[in-house]
Amino acid sequence: MITRINLAEKLARFDDHWNPRIIADLNDSHVKLAKVRGEFVWHQHADEDEMFLVLGGTLTIELRDGSVTLGPGEMVVIPKGVEHRPVAAEEVHLMLIEPRGIRHTGDVDSALTVHEYSRI
Amino acid sequence: MITRINLAEKLARFDDHWNPRIIADLNDSHVKLAKVRGEFVWHQHADEDEMFLVLGGTLTIELRDGSVTLGPGEMVVIPKGVEHRPVAAEEVHLMLIEPRGIRHTGDVDSALTVHEYSRI
Repeated sequence: MITRINLAEKLARFDDHWNPRIIADLNDSHVKLAKVRGEFVWHQHADEDEMFLVLGGTLTIELRDGSVTLGPGEMVVIPKGVEHRPVAAEEVHLMLIEPRGIRHTGDVDSALTVHEYSRI
Repeated sequence: MITRINLAEKLARFDDHWNPRIIADLNDSHVKLAKVRGEFVWHQHADEDEMFLVLGGTLTIELRDGSVTLGPGEMVVIPKGVEHRPVAAEEVHLMLIEPRGIRHTGDVDSALTVHEYSRI
């Protein structure tokens, strides 16, 4: 079924942080939305590039040799194998695109690890 | 290299229509930006799902059994094998995500076909 997806409507359906929701299938990837605040865990994805597009707020992605700060309408691709840690002083709304089956905490098992993503 | 990508800055770099620019590599896909106006050609992609996210303007994607109209902050995934035709009465700014090597006119050879995408 081909359905228009309104990002603001989808974001209004959940409030918890660091728990991405799947909004669409795209080839071997999922398109997800997330709300985040605070500090995530340092991690990497050995085999998967990960795209972050900021829809609202300001996200910093810390890297071992620096950081990237993104506002609304800004994005970055974190290549496979690169350690990173997302940090948000205030709530940030994000679109994520990454291969199906990826674990958002990558190689790290954390209290924040989501084992099954919900679909909205 | 990990670089912040500002979508508005990238969009300001070109003005032609129906000529998507590559802005990032993402696993087996490319993230692209495009400006479009008018009617594209009916086509399909036999093996590739294609994501359209509208950044500015109003895009209609005609389907053989209906249509989907998208405004800013709205997206759709056109699954592989589904015939479609994008139409824009006024200029529309788009993000596209689709597998590398895809031909934007799909199975159709058209005057609009781009044979090599530029990178910005």
